[in-house]
Amino acid sequence: MTATAAYEADDSVEREISRIGAAARAAGRALGLADAATKNNALRFAAEAIRARRDDILDANAQDLAYAETRDLSAAFKDRLILTPDRIEGMAAGLEDVATFPEPVGRVLDERVRPNGLRISRVSVPLGVIGIIYESRPNVTADAGGLCMKSGNAAILRGGSDSLHSSGLIADCLREGLKRAGLPEDCVQLVRTRDRAAVGAMLRLHDFIDVIVPRGGRSLIERVMNETTIPVIAHLDGICHVYVDAAAQPQMARDIVLNAKMRRTGICGAAETLLIDRSQVAGLLPKIVDDLINAGCELRGDAAAQAVDDRVQPASEADWTTEYLDAIISVKVVDGVQDAIDHVNTCGSNHTDSIITDDMAAAEMFLAGIDSAIVMHNASTQFADGGEFGMGAEIGISTGKLHARGPVGADQLTTFKYIVRGEGQVRP
Amino acid sequence: MTATAAYEADDSVEREISRIGAAARAAGRALGLADAATKNNALRFAAEAIRARRDDILDANAQDLAYAETRDLSAAFKDRLILTPDRIEGMAAGLEDVATFPEPVGRVLDERVRPNGLRISRVSVPLGVIGIIYESRPNVTADAGGLCMKSGNAAILRGGSDSLHSSGLIADCLREGLKRAGLPEDCVQLVRTRDRAAVGAMLRLHDFIDVIVPRGGRSLIERVMNETTIPVIAHLDGICHVYVDAAAQPQMARDIVLNAKMRRTGICGAAETLLIDRSQVAGLLPKIVDDLINAGCELRGDAAAQAVDDRVQPASEADWTTEYLDAIISVKVVDGVQDAIDHVNTCGSNHTDSIITDDMAAAEMFLAGIDSAIVMHNASTQFADGGEFGMGAEIGISTGKLHARGPVGADQLTTFKYIVRGEGQVRP
Repeated sequence: MTATAAYEADDSVEREISRIGAAARAAGRALGLADAATKNNALRFAAEAIRARRDDILDANAQDLAYAETRDLSAAFKDRLILTPDRIEGMAAGLEDVATFPEPVGRVLDERVRPNGLRISRVSVPLGVIGIIYESRPNVTADAGGLCMKSGNAAILRGGSDSLHSSGLIADCLREGLKRAGLPEDCVQLVRTRDRAAVGAMLRLHDFIDVIVPRGGRSLIERVMNETTIPVIAHLDGICHVYVDAAAQPQMARDIVLNAKMRRTGICGAAETLLIDRSQVAGLLPKIVDDLINAGCELRGDAAAQAVDDRVQPASEADWTTEYLDAIISVKVVDGVQDAIDHVNTCGSNHTDSIITDDMAAAEMFLAGIDSAIVMHNASTQFADGGEFGMGAEIGISTGKLHARGPVGADQLTTFKYIVRGEGQVRP
Repeated sequence: MTATAAYEADDSVEREISRIGAAARAAGRALGLADAATKNNALRFAAEAIRARRDDILDANAQDLAYAETRDLSAAFKDRLILTPDRIEGMAAGLEDVATFPEPVGRVLDERVRPNGLRISRVSVPLGVIGIIYESRPNVTADAGGLCMKSGNAAILRGGSDSLHSSGLIADCLREGLKRAGLPEDCVQLVRTRDRAAVGAMLRLHDFIDVIVPRGGRSLIERVMNETTIPVIAHLDGICHVYVDAAAQPQMARDIVLNAKMRRTGICGAAETLLIDRSQVAGLLPKIVDDLINAGCELRGDAAAQAVDDRVQPASEADWTTEYLDAIISVKVVDGVQDAIDHVNTCGSNHTDSIITDDMAAAEMFLAGIDSAIVMHNASTQFADGGEFGMGAEIGISTGKLHARGPVGADQLTTFKYIVRGEGQVRP
């Protein structure tokens, strides 16, 4: 059912990736022209295949886990690798959910009639071929592959070598769904090798890959961004800030800070730095410190924050630009909203930042002045999520500014073309 | 009035470009928050300054031309470099025209209220800092600088070394306009050196440049695309096709082919290849060949096209992928619309392609199947132009698929942010 290949030397990897790319380009053209019903059928058939082959997927995952045991991997790493019946059902249900989304291709984004009678419309079309490079989570194979299918894009998936067997079977299920729906299987291809040279070969595949989406830790994202001149949609860091303004409601500030930091500490929308106006240091900050410490959070503060509570550790310069993804928060006392804005624009990662205040002028100043994908007023940064935004599934949250910014769902995996309809017009 | 710097070694160039970048980032934040009236004032004041300093600009241009005389440059090159009173007035009028465009920043692109009461809007914001690398046309300084001002972006301009004096004075006028409007002059900065190392330094300036826009010949564009991992908006080639279908109206086909090729041969929307259905070879093709040859066009055809008229030269493989930008056209006989689509998608440059037919099914197949920024039905490819599209001035036509595709005007020089307004919501 699936393409398998022996990868021996770098050269053969390069050739194999090139062959995969050419096949993706050709298959993608058919997928790009497919109607909504056909693509949604493919997604539902793929979900059926995943359910039908659940035990095979669990067996493959056991193989991957056995391989992982031979290596010195962290518990968190192994947790991301593990598939359970629930997680497998989650993948299938996720594909069915994507099938219910509105059709992202063929949307008329603009339409105008020119004085010379030319009718010009701007219509959404797929990007073409998307290369997705990710780490150990095998479910990314289904999630990313499904979003590409929905948006009419061929996908070249390169998962972590530790999830090779699990991802292989999941990719097989997607290909089975495509085939049953009458679409080319090569719309979804998995790079089936542990050879890391495959990543380099993908990053050079200009002719056949239109955009690269890396998903994983900072080192992977940085490698991809530094090595490729193919456009990249990526999420580099989530150094999110909550700024508690002079005019913040105390209880609202306490609730939002606690939620933004501690609801889940490992997601990119978790707050990493608390900024608080100097006027709040005496009254409100001690309560926030208590809340966080009682919830098991470590605090690292500047001198003014340390003076509040001796359980606040000293922050180093590096703390202001660190994404902890853990129960740690840095705390800085600032002098008003402009000072907060300057700190965020200097130390932040253009992801998500929130101001807590009842002063509407301060709020608008913050919302306009912060150069981030998502800016919030009186809300927890943990809402930075495609699902919470009503966009359905997302392939990630982009911290870049070009093309896609913020949650990247099926719509963001499209581009557009101008369609010009005339009756014989020539240009004078 | 303007920053000038002595550039001595590569290292000093690198430092100077970095200083320019930091100044652009800081100045751009103020510009990004400026209201429409202030930006439009800056544009109008800049136009006034250009008119007021017309004679100085002509003197500077004479210096550039004298320098050009010492080098072995083509007549076309020198023509692009020359400024006349008319061309200077054109720059001033162009800036005033941009001032009349709708405001590109602050457009609400989407708005939704979530079930939890969060109000989420997606609002257009400037990209930040745009690096523009161009060749000898000094008017690009005004055109590109003006579009950046309008769209709230700081501009780092690096013009061809041959236009250094002319571009320097024009940049001074833009800076004067910014200053008079109360905006930081450093929103527009010209790299004032002939040292080509400045281009390399710009291409590495990730921290301060958000997007690079190269304007010029293919070698410049390719260098930029190959050397930078900063996002690039560029126009690589304009290998535009006209396909004359079996169901084309003969006179319409003749008019459009002649216009698409010969109206102006040097623009990117000029047709470079004529595809014609085999059924039209006996009747229509000889007339089209006559039209083109009478207009002074050289034809290079495949065997079937050569058989029509012995003035048709043989085409080589390279002809199908050559952008002549001259009075030359390649001619290929194809078997129906799918054959035409396959040729365009293989040999084209994703720019602009047109089908001439009265068969609506063939037209829709072509419009859907061609993977180009602009696809046309019964219209001349020479309409591929921001002005003709009603978008006002353009910085170029992008043949890339990400972010901006087709004409790149002020709107395309913006990105967006999500603004989330709550009343204390935390995520469950």
